[in-house]
Amino acid sequence: MKRVKLVVAYDGTNYRGWQVQKNGVTVAEELNRALKELTGEEIQVHGASRTDAGVHAMGNVAVFDTEARMAGDKFVFALNQRLPEDIRVQDSCEVPMDFHPRFQKTVKTYEYRILNRKFPLPAYRLNTYFYYYPLDVEKMQKAAAYLVGEHDFASFCAAGAQVKTTVRTIYGLNVSKNGDLITIRITGNGFLYNMVRIIAGTLIRIGAGESEPECIPEILEARSRAKAGPTAPAKGLTLMEIRYPEAEETLKN
Amino acid sequence: MKRVKLVVAYDGTNYRGWQVQKNGVTVAEELNRALKELTGEEIQVHGASRTDAGVHAMGNVAVFDTEARMAGDKFVFALNQRLPEDIRVQDSCEVPMDFHPRFQKTVKTYEYRILNRKFPLPAYRLNTYFYYYPLDVEKMQKAAAYLVGEHDFASFCAAGAQVKTTVRTIYGLNVSKNGDLITIRITGNGFLYNMVRIIAGTLIRIGAGESEPECIPEILEARSRAKAGPTAPAKGLTLMEIRYPEAEETLKN
Repeated sequence: MKRVKLVVAYDGTNYRGWQVQKNGVTVAEELNRALKELTGEEIQVHGASRTDAGVHAMGNVAVFDTEARMAGDKFVFALNQRLPEDIRVQDSCEVPMDFHPRFQKTVKTYEYRILNRKFPLPAYRLNTYFYYYPLDVEKMQKAAAYLVGEHDFASFCAAGAQVKTTVRTIYGLNVSKNGDLITIRITGNGFLYNMVRIIAGTLIRIGAGESEPECIPEILEARSRAKAGPTAPAKGLTLMEIRYPEAEETLKN
Repeated sequence: MKRVKLVVAYDGTNYRGWQVQKNGVTVAEELNRALKELTGEEIQVHGASRTDAGVHAMGNVAVFDTEARMAGDKFVFALNQRLPEDIRVQDSCEVPMDFHPRFQKTVKTYEYRILNRKFPLPAYRLNTYFYYYPLDVEKMQKAAAYLVGEHDFASFCAAGAQVKTTVRTIYGLNVSKNGDLITIRITGNGFLYNMVRIIAGTLIRIGAGESEPECIPEILEARSRAKAGPTAPAKGLTLMEIRYPEAEETLKN
């Protein structure tokens, strides 16, 4: 028996998210199916991040256990031959049997992308959120700075989510503009349910001039979902990278 | 009666190219349908570039004539409401009745994009050509320089194409690399059938080390399709912009 870790990229457009569920096909389901084809075993992958329907990934992480004699680093090739083209494994390697992608310290990086122009561009339709009204990136960046550090992010957590604590640390939160494309890049030690999309929705509201950057400390203090902006659409969100600083290896895309 | 010019962006993945044909849906067909819905007239758009199946555009140009009283610049909004999301008009304006997008001098810009890495990335699957073997961009750029200027491009024209002359002028041909993405950007006064894709295929062959940049002058001189490289896949090609230097306006994306 060995444990294998996968780094997985996918376009979430056609999936009901990561986690196996009754209605619709999920990314984990496709991986389980490909692993069964390859090994003959009933394998269930365990994901580091159970991304929502429509959310994309450049580097989600999953592990599975197998009796297969194939070397850990060979799974990447064999799986890609058995996966649809909107899912592609980027790396595979054997890890210790006690490695679990969710139960250890992680540093996750997400990007939320907004196409901010007069008309949508078809080439960007699957992985950006189209926003018509001009956004003030400087204001968004100013607002973003208030969120960096350790805070209680209760206001930025989907109502009803069950968690022990809503305190998280954001290591970096950058808003940049390249032509019509605005990218919110956020790195932290963990994110609450819908946290990145609520942060994006709040920054968009500020960029559009509907509220001021200075409202962020008030929103944090309120610890109330109602105070933050709307949850931005899933299609703009991409899980870029998950790192395990305590494990020896570093995963990069 | 007035003539209206459209700038049209589309993802060509789901279309059998621009031009209306019997098998499968085309971009022109979708525009004709949307125009009929809007005006009640049987309108046929005339495209500046009849892109092949799978080729994309950021700024193809089309004109049509209509009796509709709607101002030329309003069509962009009305059409986008009636088009699928992989086709989006970027601009519309009234032009003189003698303006025809194909029968006057144009400057066209194409990009051919190659994703050059070990594994494909789903986010790039629709509009890049995935190429596994490492490409030497410097060699590709060196080869590209030989193609700039006025040449007989007979070797870079699909066999059997009927044209008066195979002489064309390339104003600029640049190969750049950004991370794993290699972009071939080419501007010229006109392109033969499959010319950009054959140039891309030839540059890829050189980048892969299968032939040397210095072979380009020989290929040009041979005036034989067999001497150039393969026709690179349609999905990597995007028509970026068409300008009409003799007309007063300049179209930019």
